[in-house]
Amino acid sequence: MGEFDYIDWLRRQTPGDQRVLLGPGDDCAVLAGTAHPWLVTTDMLLEGSHFCLAEAGPKRVGRKAMAVNLSDIAAMAGRPVAAVVSVGLPRGDANQIAEGLYEGLRACADAFETAIVGGDTNTWDGGLVVSVTLLGQPTPPGPVRRAGARPGDWLLVTGPLGASLLGKHLDFTPRVREAILLQQSAHLHAMIDVSDGLAADAHHICEESGCGAVLRAEAIPIHPAAGQMTDGRPPLEHALSDGEDFDWRSLYRPRTASAS
Amino acid sequence: MGEFDYIDWLRRQTPGDQRVLLGPGDDCAVLAGTAHPWLVTTDMLLEGSHFCLAEAGPKRVGRKAMAVNLSDIAAMAGRPVAAVVSVGLPRGDANQIAEGLYEGLRACADAFETAIVGGDTNTWDGGLVVSVTLLGQPTPPGPVRRAGARPGDWLLVTGPLGASLLGKHLDFTPRVREAILLQQSAHLHAMIDVSDGLAADAHHICEESGCGAVLRAEAIPIHPAAGQMTDGRPPLEHALSDGEDFDWRSLYRPRTASAS
Repeated sequence: MGEFDYIDWLRRQTPGDQRVLLGPGDDCAVLAGTAHPWLVTTDMLLEGSHFCLAEAGPKRVGRKAMAVNLSDIAAMAGRPVAAVVSVGLPRGDANQIAEGLYEGLRACADAFETAIVGGDTNTWDGGLVVSVTLLGQPTPPGPVRRAGARPGDWLLVTGPLGASLLGKHLDFTPRVREAILLQQSAHLHAMIDVSDGLAADAHHICEESGCGAVLRAEAIPIHPAAGQMTDGRPPLEHALSDGEDFDWRSLYRPRTASAS
Repeated sequence: MGEFDYIDWLRRQTPGDQRVLLGPGDDCAVLAGTAHPWLVTTDMLLEGSHFCLAEAGPKRVGRKAMAVNLSDIAAMAGRPVAAVVSVGLPRGDANQIAEGLYEGLRACADAFETAIVGGDTNTWDGGLVVSVTLLGQPTPPGPVRRAGARPGDWLLVTGPLGASLLGKHLDFTPRVREAILLQQSAHLHAMIDVSDGLAADAHHICEESGCGAVLRAEAIPIHPAAGQMTDGRPPLEHALSDGEDFDWRSLYRPRTASAS
């Protein structure tokens, strides 16, 4: 199957979507205009750095490539709309990888009502590379930035942290729905998704917001997998410093206290 | 320079832009909403397939990575607005490559009033990978698709073709301004940028439009470089089949005849 056959195959897989005026197959996709701002994010996964292809298989890699981008939209309480996907496929196994990859991308996109509207497919002598760019739209009252945390805010995570390397980094659920629900029920001051680790990402929020933070060790939820790591470091350390947890943290005051 | 230092450096390089509500540094960029549709395109360049890093140097690679995407926006007569860039940098030389790459990306983006609003920077054991996603907006009366060519249309190219391998594939000028001017002065039925070669790309237009095309050999403008190729194939063959010319073709009838 050549590149053009692959594009034809992709077009047949692509359902209609009223937000998409023109899908895959032309020089550009065309999305309907809207008075709301657009959120734009991109994330690239590289074989050997972000996944082991032989262990994970192409479908899980595709799933992760979509999910890490959905996680970025979630981190601003956005609603995902459309994605484009560019890939570099290792020569030899390109066809089989391309199909598995697309299955994983599509399953994850479908689960979050995201259209795949275009892409670029290449074959090369290197490892598998997948780059997704995701467009989304903010939910009222608007995008939740990293800058905005204030003294007195609560610091929350959506799930237990640590040892994502043992599997969660491939199979995590992007917190799109949780973020929108929280945005509807509380006054969120700041948000980030935990991709560099709780300690590093808390630091990012503090730096952008010009404030500090106190993490109470006994209050940090630790993933059971963190106790299964065999590197001798305590589970709390994994919860603090392991990357790719993708359970985001938010800082907010309850809505009743937000008038201050 | 680590990833976060690089992001800080990028943020200092990024000028304000009224179309960009939030630039690099958060989980997503935020673009102002608009009643017009959005054009979205993505293209990935891979070391060894699309460029030789040792010969081209990182700056020309960055330039090309932006230019191929601008060429796709041009192929629909669009006006580019904003780009995100994800990169995989070879370990070792990552810093020097990252800076040169950005210089090239920025120079080309600036030349076409395109904001770079975000990205993703990674280091790995493989070759250099650059993926750009570009957002643009159509110009009136709307995006020029591949489907739309009709019997009787003229077939035009914006420049001489062939032997782009000798340098043009790195240094070509994306035909953004020419496309917008043509769209203003004629009734364009279909357009494509020549990335797969004149013959293949004419075929794409024909296939999408459900029509045929006649190319008159003596009317095809041949690039002087096509005579310098040493593979024994005649210059016309290079003009017909060499990829990455990026001079797009359009099919149209003069405006006066378009009422038919």
